[in-house]
Amino acid sequence: YVTLASDPDPVNDFCVLNRSSATTSLPCKNSSLVTVEDFVFSGIKFRGKFSETGLASIPVNVNVFPGLNTLGMSMVRADFDVGGVNVPHFHPRATEIAVVLEGKIYSGFVDTQNRIFAKVIEKGEVMVFPRGLVHFQMNVGDTWATILGSFDSQNPGLQKIPSAVFGSNIKEELLEKAFGLTPKEIAKLRKRFAPHRL
Amino acid sequence: YVTLASDPDPVNDFCVLNRSSATTSLPCKNSSLVTVEDFVFSGIKFRGKFSETGLASIPVNVNVFPGLNTLGMSMVRADFDVGGVNVPHFHPRATEIAVVLEGKIYSGFVDTQNRIFAKVIEKGEVMVFPRGLVHFQMNVGDTWATILGSFDSQNPGLQKIPSAVFGSNIKEELLEKAFGLTPKEIAKLRKRFAPHRL
Amino acid sequence: YVTLASDPDPVNDFCVLNRSSATTSLPCKNSSLVTVEDFVFSGIKFRGKFSETGLASIPVNVNVFPGLNTLGMSMVRADFDVGGVNVPHFHPRATEIAVVLEGKIYSGFVDTQNRIFAKVIEKGEVMVFPRGLVHFQMNVGDTWATILGSFDSQNPGLQKIPSAVFGSNIKEELLEKAFGLTPKEIAKLRKRFAPHRL
Amino acid sequence: YVTLASDPDPVNDFCVLNRSSATTSLPCKNSSLVTVEDFVFSGIKFRGKFSETGLASIPVNVNVFPGLNTLGMSMVRADFDVGGVNVPHFHPRATEIAVVLEGKIYSGFVDTQNRIFAKVIEKGEVMVFPRGLVHFQMNVGDTWATILGSFDSQNPGLQKIPSAVFGSNIKEELLEKAFGLTPKEIAKLRKRFAPHRL
Amino acid sequence: YVTLASDPDPVNDFCVLNRSSATTSLPCKNSSLVTVEDFVFSGIKFRGKFSETGLASIPVNVNVFPGLNTLGMSMVRADFDVGGVNVPHFHPRATEIAVVLEGKIYSGFVDTQNRIFAKVIEKGEVMVFPRGLVHFQMNVGDTWATILGSFDSQNPGLQKIPSAVFGSNIKEELLEKAFGLTPKEIAKLRKRFAPHRL
Amino acid sequence: YVTLASDPDPVNDFCVLNRSSATTSLPCKNSSLVTVEDFVFSGIKFRGKFSETGLASIPVNVNVFPGLNTLGMSMVRADFDVGGVNVPHFHPRATEIAVVLEGKIYSGFVDTQNRIFAKVIEKGEVMVFPRGLVHFQMNVGDTWATILGSFDSQNPGLQKIPSAVFGSNIKEELLEKAFGLTPKEIAKLRKRFAPHRL
Repeated sequence: YVTLASDPDPVNDFCVLNRSSATTSLPCKNSSLVTVEDFVFSGIKFRGKFSETGLASIPVNVNVFPGLNTLGMSMVRADFDVGGVNVPHFHPRATEIAVVLEGKIYSGFVDTQNRIFAKVIEKGEVMVFPRGLVHFQMNVGDTWATILGSFDSQNPGLQKIPSAVFGSNIKEELLEKAFGLTPKEIAKLRKRFAPHRL
Repeated sequence: YVTLASDPDPVNDFCVLNRSSATTSLPCKNSSLVTVEDFVFSGIKFRGKFSETGLASIPVNVNVFPGLNTLGMSMVRADFDVGGVNVPHFHPRATEIAVVLEGKIYSGFVDTQNRIFAKVIEKGEVMVFPRGLVHFQMNVGDTWATILGSFDSQNPGLQKIPSAVFGSNIKEELLEKAFGLTPKEIAKLRKRFAPHRL
Repeated sequence: YVTLASDPDPVNDFCVLNRSSATTSLPCKNSSLVTVEDFVFSGIKFRGKFSETGLASIPVNVNVFPGLNTLGMSMVRADFDVGGVNVPHFHPRATEIAVVLEGKIYSGFVDTQNRIFAKVIEKGEVMVFPRGLVHFQMNVGDTWATILGSFDSQNPGLQKIPSAVFGSNIKEELLEKAFGLTPKEIAKLRKRFAPHRL
Repeated sequence: YVTLASDPDPVNDFCVLNRSSATTSLPCKNSSLVTVEDFVFSGIKFRGKFSETGLASIPVNVNVFPGLNTLGMSMVRADFDVGGVNVPHFHPRATEIAVVLEGKIYSGFVDTQNRIFAKVIEKGEVMVFPRGLVHFQMNVGDTWATILGSFDSQNPGLQKIPSAVFGSNIKEELLEKAFGLTPKEIAKLRKRFAPHRL
Repeated sequence: YVTLASDPDPVNDFCVLNRSSATTSLPCKNSSLVTVEDFVFSGIKFRGKFSETGLASIPVNVNVFPGLNTLGMSMVRADFDVGGVNVPHFHPRATEIAVVLEGKIYSGFVDTQNRIFAKVIEKGEVMVFPRGLVHFQMNVGDTWATILGSFDSQNPGLQKIPSAVFGSNIKEELLEKAFGLTPKEIAKLRKRFAPHRL
Repeated sequence: YVTLASDPDPVNDFCVLNRSSATTSLPCKNSSLVTVEDFVFSGIKFRGKFSETGLASIPVNVNVFPGLNTLGMSMVRADFDVGGVNVPHFHPRATEIAVVLEGKIYSGFVDTQNRIFAKVIEKGEVMVFPRGLVHFQMNVGDTWATILGSFDSQNPGLQKIPSAVFGSNIKEELLEKAFGLTPKEIAKLRKRFAPHRL
């Protein structure tokens, strides 16, 4: 049996993801066809469109930047409207280092003892979110804010707590007991995060 | 600088954690003092005490079973009262394989696309929860139920969503925006999961 | 997508092994076709058939449970007849944690200094066998016994010492010198463990 | 013997480097003493002082930011004077992703077939330098330029080709033969990169 | 808790093992005290003394060559008397590549399907033994033979089948059943491989 | 050549590289077709042809020895003419252990502080070059010399400093500034290491 998909040491200089691998069977693009463009990504020059919570997030992982394949890293650009929020979330497969490029961001994480480590960080400051721990951010300044995050995985994954928990159709009774909420309160949350709203 | 704390290949047969390392400076117990007792753990013979949600969970990680040190694995025994719930949670550093020893358990996980994979599993059935993804369980049978979980980390960590999010003192406004709840609703949740209740 | 043959961090939530990859070239099953059944295994509900040494062992690795692919873990169920023996063996690619579900088992391993760590463990007790070291078990109770083992590899491998050494056609003279046995004694062992008996 | 220093999966939420470990023997800071300040770094708010080649580089690795310990990542801020050069160099233990924050940078790397992948990248563009390969940059714009680099190691290391080769006292005859240069030419290079100039 | 002992990517250029770490608490030798002698090993210039089976083996692992610490590799020199045998054995933590420096060696390994891969290899030929699989060698030439082996672990470990199984005091009854031998035959083997003969 | 894309623990006994994978889509050769010849390499019995610098180097990596695939190791044989030089180079993905088989070799490496660790080593001596650091060798004896190197990667990669820097078409102005050389001096070096000379 053959298997895999991993994030360890590469065994080649690079292995640009072959987007047509379904038909060619070669996971790496033929190296003679590789050009510098495969290693440059221009998709985070501009901020994206703000979501309802005032966040515009653009992931730069191997799915959009095939040159990252096997290289063990990826990024994200996150812009915040005034008061904008990056909801509590975590990356199941990576640590994140985030640098504030503009603005003032309340930023923090929770460890497995439920201790919070949070503070307002400003332009030029760096914060690290240890692998897999819940973290969050809010723009507490008067202007738009921008953060650049880096990950030690080519595809760190993302689970946003509100939609993963309330938007995924977990049995209602379980959620009621887990959160100590009434059926009505759970229904409100499930409606808000129902898949069609994603 | 030197550092450490990792979960990869061991470089010795074993390295039983030296509980007095603060004073001796040797992370591994002297191997001539190691006995078979260091590799046997008897603390999950009996179920623990049920929590409010009807769960009795006993982790078997390197903190309680020092012989696991550097060996890359650990376990958990989880007993469920009738209707008992293991709230949505995840392990930041491990995949889990869970076997039902007794009873009928509604069991599932959510992937990073918010798709749910859940079903009722019974005695003798095995379910795998991929590394770092939110998962949950509820005893849907008429009797107590028991699950045995294994992890590919000596210390997988655990974040329970309700207490990590609502019991860790994350800024109120951020939670209101993240979940679309009123200050009053958030206050209720924060009160329920305040640290003194852990 | 990337391929290959390793046991490290996954780079996707999961990558269910594509059993028809010989024709499709995709190592992971198309994720939109993945269902909860891919993550549940029901093949160890019942014990297998006892071997000559009184062991019934059912491996639960990626070969039979494709959902384990890239997730770094697997299991085994082992049932023992009264007096049944799991011959000295080792797993070349994994640590094992074994829990006694029923019965009394003499259980142990040998380290690279030829020291033995063995004792009788009972229902509810856990023993760890460090990566790659020779270990063994024997049911020393009056009833059938059952053990559940977990591994930190999706395919830990197994080498049973008697058949690997005497059933694999290693040059006779080498075995005579290695074990200090006569040609006749070696011949007896080779006959017993000849491949047709496996 | 046991030891270490590695860059794999952490086994704790974090392990802030204990700067006084020489006397205390504990590589991780006592977790009850850890605060949010351990996870925030403010040392790259402002650019450093330009070197002779017009580069001001500030590494943000575990040596200056102890909270990175065991988390597998680090960063660097690099500012370029007009015409400033980051000499050909490589990081022996990491891939790098670099984002241009300001300016226009000629940026590239060489693979193990001596093929060059280089181009001018501008504000907001990202380039990846695969693990261990020689890369280089030059500010080709009319203004100062700034780059932010991230690494998948807490201590990626850095070897600058000119000083590693000509400033490290490698036997002269070897260098003459390696580069096809005269003793006089080698002497000039060695003088330029002699240690006192670092 | 702190842990360690691994074989993954280093996070420093080197970390020469500090032989006095019991008293100093620093696993790496102070790097300013490190010299070239720490990275050179001269202990395999000459062959060792032949054992009863005609093998003289000198391991070059981190225990004797502290400079290997954290670098993920080690070696062995093995000399064979005419007819000398390297008994079936395996390395629990490493693949081995072996080069014949002198002589003709019958050399092979057994896979987990009990298939043998063996042949006579000669001076200048290389054979690879996959991680953790049982392998063996015998000098089938008319002169002494020498092999040089390399491992991808700083401490690969070694289990020699005869002494690990028969020289470690595994319960007699278990061995009788496992090998289908009589108590008398087992007693002979146990006597031969009793610890005092190691 | 495709191979793929990691260097961690294997998940099979072996996975011999399938040289016709472009058409069959299976990266591992069908295991029933695998023979002992897949695990034996005979291409370094004799030395290669000396280069201009007096080096004859034969790499034994997964590209020429498909049986190494997924096993995490490879080798090189290097022969030196009298006065022959192995130019300053490094392997981006591996540590190297080198044994002198014949002759006297000036051998060394440079760490990331530009400290040199070099000395003359002789037949039977071993030197280790830590992962990714620049190293070099010169035959300082009166006869041909031979070295055997091993790597902890199936494809360690190789960057020779002179040709990587001066033979890869890096912008002239950047090289002038980096090395403090005149356009004429740079031109001479670029001519010498231009690709057609490789």
